[in-house]
Amino acid sequence: MSAARPDLTALALAQARQALWLSSPNPRVGCVVCDPAGNVLGQGHTQRVGGPHAEIMALRDAAAKGHDVRGATAYVTLEPCSHHGRTGPCCDALVEAGIGRVVASIADPNPLVSGQGFERLLAAGIEVEVGPGGAESRELNLGFFSRMVRKTPWVRLKVAASLDGTTALEDGTSQWITSEAARADGHAWRARACAVLTGIGTVLEDDPQLDVRLPDAPRQPHAVLVDSRLELPLAARILRPDRKLLVYAAIADAQKQAALEARGATVILLPGPGGKVDLAAMLRDLAQREVNELHVEAGHKLNGSLVREGLVDEFLVYLAPRLLGPGRGMASLAPLGELSQAVQLQFQSAEPVGPDLRVLARIPGRGAF
Amino acid sequence: MSAARPDLTALALAQARQALWLSSPNPRVGCVVCDPAGNVLGQGHTQRVGGPHAEIMALRDAAAKGHDVRGATAYVTLEPCSHHGRTGPCCDALVEAGIGRVVASIADPNPLVSGQGFERLLAAGIEVEVGPGGAESRELNLGFFSRMVRKTPWVRLKVAASLDGTTALEDGTSQWITSEAARADGHAWRARACAVLTGIGTVLEDDPQLDVRLPDAPRQPHAVLVDSRLELPLAARILRPDRKLLVYAAIADAQKQAALEARGATVILLPGPGGKVDLAAMLRDLAQREVNELHVEAGHKLNGSLVREGLVDEFLVYLAPRLLGPGRGMASLAPLGELSQAVQLQFQSAEPVGPDLRVLARIPGRGAF
Repeated sequence: MSAARPDLTALALAQARQALWLSSPNPRVGCVVCDPAGNVLGQGHTQRVGGPHAEIMALRDAAAKGHDVRGATAYVTLEPCSHHGRTGPCCDALVEAGIGRVVASIADPNPLVSGQGFERLLAAGIEVEVGPGGAESRELNLGFFSRMVRKTPWVRLKVAASLDGTTALEDGTSQWITSEAARADGHAWRARACAVLTGIGTVLEDDPQLDVRLPDAPRQPHAVLVDSRLELPLAARILRPDRKLLVYAAIADAQKQAALEARGATVILLPGPGGKVDLAAMLRDLAQREVNELHVEAGHKLNGSLVREGLVDEFLVYLAPRLLGPGRGMASLAPLGELSQAVQLQFQSAEPVGPDLRVLARIPGRGAF
Repeated sequence: MSAARPDLTALALAQARQALWLSSPNPRVGCVVCDPAGNVLGQGHTQRVGGPHAEIMALRDAAAKGHDVRGATAYVTLEPCSHHGRTGPCCDALVEAGIGRVVASIADPNPLVSGQGFERLLAAGIEVEVGPGGAESRELNLGFFSRMVRKTPWVRLKVAASLDGTTALEDGTSQWITSEAARADGHAWRARACAVLTGIGTVLEDDPQLDVRLPDAPRQPHAVLVDSRLELPLAARILRPDRKLLVYAAIADAQKQAALEARGATVILLPGPGGKVDLAAMLRDLAQREVNELHVEAGHKLNGSLVREGLVDEFLVYLAPRLLGPGRGMASLAPLGELSQAVQLQFQSAEPVGPDLRVLARIPGRGAF
């Protein structure tokens, strides 16, 4: 067996990244089929949910180009599926096509199916190597892995703040602290999420649409609203006929619920302490509804609740080059008695976006599950 | 006349950067002497104040290596001096050595002498080209240019904050928000300044030394204290026999002043409105005392006064990967009525320093004087 070629793994990962805005809630997977000399015969990536997976796309690409793939190697960034989900098993397609060898980046994280794809391939006499590109593939699909393993989405909290940490003036004015470039970048991060979450306070103050306004966005993430007392106005812009809206409430109000559901919203009652929505239960419910990455764009109060309960995995912070002085912060937290009580993070990156800075920070170790 | 060689200009600038911690209040200047083919015969940079300038060091280096520099080209990052200051004029040394051509990055910013060096060289029959590396040389010496042109130091305000902009807990606890790596980096920024400024509040709370604790720091910046009511304890650690301390006060207290001066401090009375030190006048006074770069490490109140009065040119911000919630901010500012009233900045860079981020931001256009 020859060594796996890093360039072909890289190409398969580049294919997988093509599915970033497309395949949710399915994982972002890429596949490259090549001959024994390493010449690429076909490549592809997972399509929209219900559409073909990466392996099928790569085999189709090779067939369209008239290539014979018998004995070929398939580089694929996730274990090929062996089960009948929304589509037929990719393993069967690889076997039927006569593929001789599979180089897979990482096993499927779903404990119910993990390893079964590899077993099916081995049983059919296909050589299997697992590992190249594994870390990158997992990182690209961290939300999918989180949903499968932790049974909760990967929660990314986005805030826009001045360099001195102010996200809104004391009266709530926050439009706009960051630049148009940062806001467009924020839309790209919304676009990769399965769902965008906000709180009723933000809806009542700013009436945001929370949709993706980018010319080439192939799908809209669901909208999720934390609305303990079901105060959502029926005319709110977050209520759109073309998008799923999940409203989490803590009190039952049959009339309001019926009115919202008549407009296409789904109302879920998850009461927690103090008349508030049970946020941890909400995340578990969102995972059951196939939410991999949850993008939070809320006000400082809901942000504070999520941070205090340890439910935020990652912070996406846009810092504008200005000082605003006192106002609302990133997350409403109680004053600390000691520095050691701080919420500890780890910076992942800091990049300029137009005149602003985009800082990614993660709770240390949170990605290790 | 052959074209100036960018690599030799770059080498002269690299020499100039060697003087970053060394030459204050003199500018950081580098010099490279080469033969007509571009072979380097000697190089050097400005030494401690009172010591030789870059041109002398480069000529000495060439002589020590036994090179004949007659007809050679000198790349120098600032106009050679023509006046007798603490040392003899460099122009004369270049003329006497028989240098045939000078490539200078930029003219001396001192309006009293600017251009006179070039005239002296031209009068001696030396070819002169001005321009290559000019922007870099000016940036490296922004404090010197500021003092010469604006008659005020370049003011760099350093703060260490959590990602959410908190610089201290409500009780003032701030040791340590950032990492040891960030603090060492902060010492390197202190080391390049002519003086480090703080306020009496910080001295009474933290009793800092405000010195440079780096193994290879060749000099200590002066200490400057804003102490309107002359409250500085005689045992404060900022009072050190081996370093100049300038205390700016707003009220006269002959007894206290005598006690401080007996310990080596200099007390300067500059009363402004409200019983406070006139901060703008203090900066003008510091420039007269040859302070090029002023490094501010103060609390949120003095920071706020400096920011409100428009006296800060640049912010050096260390952001720690943690959330601290409410506490003291970077600069005590009044709440804004509109976002447009913010203090506008421009990011210069954002770099990781250990686990932290170092962000440099400048008031837009402030460097154009």
